[in-house]
Amino acid sequence: MFEFNVITESQTCRARAGLLQTAHGDVETPVFMPVGTRGSVKSVSPEELLAAGTRIILGNTYHLYLRPGCDVIRRFAGLHRFMHWDGPILTDSGGFQVFSLAKLAKISEEGVTFQSHLDGSSHLLTPEKSIEIQTCLDSDIVMCLDNCIQYPATREDSRDALEITTKWALRCKQAWQESQNSRNALFGIVQGGMFEDLRQRSADELMKIDFPGYAVGGLSVGEPAEVMLEMADHTLPLLPETKPRYIMGVGTPEDLIELVALGADMFDCVLPTRNARNGQMFTQNGTVNISNARYKEDTEPLDSGCACYTCRNYSRAYLRHLYMARELLAYRLNTIHNIHYFISFMKQIREAIQADEFESFRKAFYRKLEN
Amino acid sequence: MFEFNVITESQTCRARAGLLQTAHGDVETPVFMPVGTRGSVKSVSPEELLAAGTRIILGNTYHLYLRPGCDVIRRFAGLHRFMHWDGPILTDSGGFQVFSLAKLAKISEEGVTFQSHLDGSSHLLTPEKSIEIQTCLDSDIVMCLDNCIQYPATREDSRDALEITTKWALRCKQAWQESQNSRNALFGIVQGGMFEDLRQRSADELMKIDFPGYAVGGLSVGEPAEVMLEMADHTLPLLPETKPRYIMGVGTPEDLIELVALGADMFDCVLPTRNARNGQMFTQNGTVNISNARYKEDTEPLDSGCACYTCRNYSRAYLRHLYMARELLAYRLNTIHNIHYFISFMKQIREAIQADEFESFRKAFYRKLEN
Repeated sequence: MFEFNVITESQTCRARAGLLQTAHGDVETPVFMPVGTRGSVKSVSPEELLAAGTRIILGNTYHLYLRPGCDVIRRFAGLHRFMHWDGPILTDSGGFQVFSLAKLAKISEEGVTFQSHLDGSSHLLTPEKSIEIQTCLDSDIVMCLDNCIQYPATREDSRDALEITTKWALRCKQAWQESQNSRNALFGIVQGGMFEDLRQRSADELMKIDFPGYAVGGLSVGEPAEVMLEMADHTLPLLPETKPRYIMGVGTPEDLIELVALGADMFDCVLPTRNARNGQMFTQNGTVNISNARYKEDTEPLDSGCACYTCRNYSRAYLRHLYMARELLAYRLNTIHNIHYFISFMKQIREAIQADEFESFRKAFYRKLEN
Repeated sequence: MFEFNVITESQTCRARAGLLQTAHGDVETPVFMPVGTRGSVKSVSPEELLAAGTRIILGNTYHLYLRPGCDVIRRFAGLHRFMHWDGPILTDSGGFQVFSLAKLAKISEEGVTFQSHLDGSSHLLTPEKSIEIQTCLDSDIVMCLDNCIQYPATREDSRDALEITTKWALRCKQAWQESQNSRNALFGIVQGGMFEDLRQRSADELMKIDFPGYAVGGLSVGEPAEVMLEMADHTLPLLPETKPRYIMGVGTPEDLIELVALGADMFDCVLPTRNARNGQMFTQNGTVNISNARYKEDTEPLDSGCACYTCRNYSRAYLRHLYMARELLAYRLNTIHNIHYFISFMKQIREAIQADEFESFRKAFYRKLEN
């Protein structure tokens, strides 16, 4: 049920437009995936996600495993019906959150033992367990358990983490094949820290195992933006041109357009949703902090060029009022706009690639930001 | 632009069905008005209010006066466009919140001085000022500033408060006539504590001033439900049959059906919205606490007989999960259901009155609750 095809390639850079086909529908790439950590993209409904142009969302295995747990999700035959989202879902492996949120995470070749951040209960996350949970979630795109390390990391730590990542990837592939869930796809995750030769080795080892898609992990973990782009520039061309390439956990609109230029197809990030809840809004002229007093009596929409529900119906003054009063509607109206911005931005990028106008689109994008 | 007509009267009790006509549309009565304290019915959009059957909402003058303030609202020519709600709006006078929320409220014949609960700034709320603010809000139904007292209150305090209420009502009427806002209506508020003769005197004095509608205030201030019903039973028949009668700040579904039987037409209460945010849901079989562990794996909708967005698309298990995780979507899905319940309940009451089946409807309502 899973297929990926490159439709158009830019003549001037590595950017490409493609089509992902999944059991829950098609997704045009490059694509941005809003994050629905605990079975809900915070504050918005599935209908609002669709209206904002969302075609695929991300769910977090770590959170959903701890609460509500697989016993609950299984009664709904997966996450889709549980959360009333019929479109494709990509789930991460749980590894990243185990290292960043759980207590006392201890890694061994078998897997990671950790204590729940909710109740302190002990758990063991293995490659097989991660696939089992993601299978129960009926995820359309399943991610291999990887060993994601912090920045900066020594060459030795980076090498150790990549070696474990490769071993786990092999076990994930076996577990995935045994799960007989041919409807979904399993992606391998390239690690290797900020070392070019380790990235090369990680990519080679994963390609030998052979996956329907590949992610670049271990980026956006604290390194400067230019280091992130350098590593992506080095790593993306190592991966098969016929497979989708996913950069995990990135990033700003500027990051996204640069990574598309380097050949990336898929992205996820909490930036639009988290910043919305903090009052930081993305517009074609740059970011806006809606709490700013200059918007107190401003009857104009947030972004006059935007067609989202928020901009069509509400003023900056009202959004500021809701935000200052900490009204629940504030988080939702802000989130709707920011998701719409990210999704529309990717759509414009896609259309520019298809019309072979990517370079001029990129220039126009930066020109508007500087205004 | 304001008109009220009784359409059907029950043959067995004082219940009646009527039609309110306002500059922002018609409203069938008896009607329940969700509370939109700060220019937003907490967590839901105007479209969701309409889909739940809402035809009129309430705004709080005290909150909107302090934030965002009339200077902001005036730029939108009123609250309707500011908050993107095109239907009728009733605003209270601000008096009730001054006494319950503000600091150091001091009452004199001139008005009430108080300190803002937001920043401690000093303000004077007079009858004229209250009308001025409500005119700026472009409220369809404007309430007189009244002196609402706590329960229990002595006969002397109750009498003093009613006397001030009458004097303020007269000044409100004058200010309202001078505002030349013929599009809206001004309602007088009957006070008099829990003393029948004082209620009679208050009603008589207000009717002499003559208002397009009348409210019964000073109920649901801490007295037992049977005392509230006794006072309503005594007071409602004192008011003109041709004018709308509004019971302020009440109540439970049981309160509402009993008050309709006593001849009340309009209601507002934070109960459905506030309780939704605390996980208490109203159903035809009584209230449900969605955090209860028995709903953990429950794939059924909250109320299988309910046609609201929440019940059509989500399970009890999902609602419980969102609530336990304190996801923002929880407050909204719960609120949509509870508002839908209250609005549908009033619609069923209205239809029962029109079919002269009110008594059998009332019996069936209590029978279901006992199940």
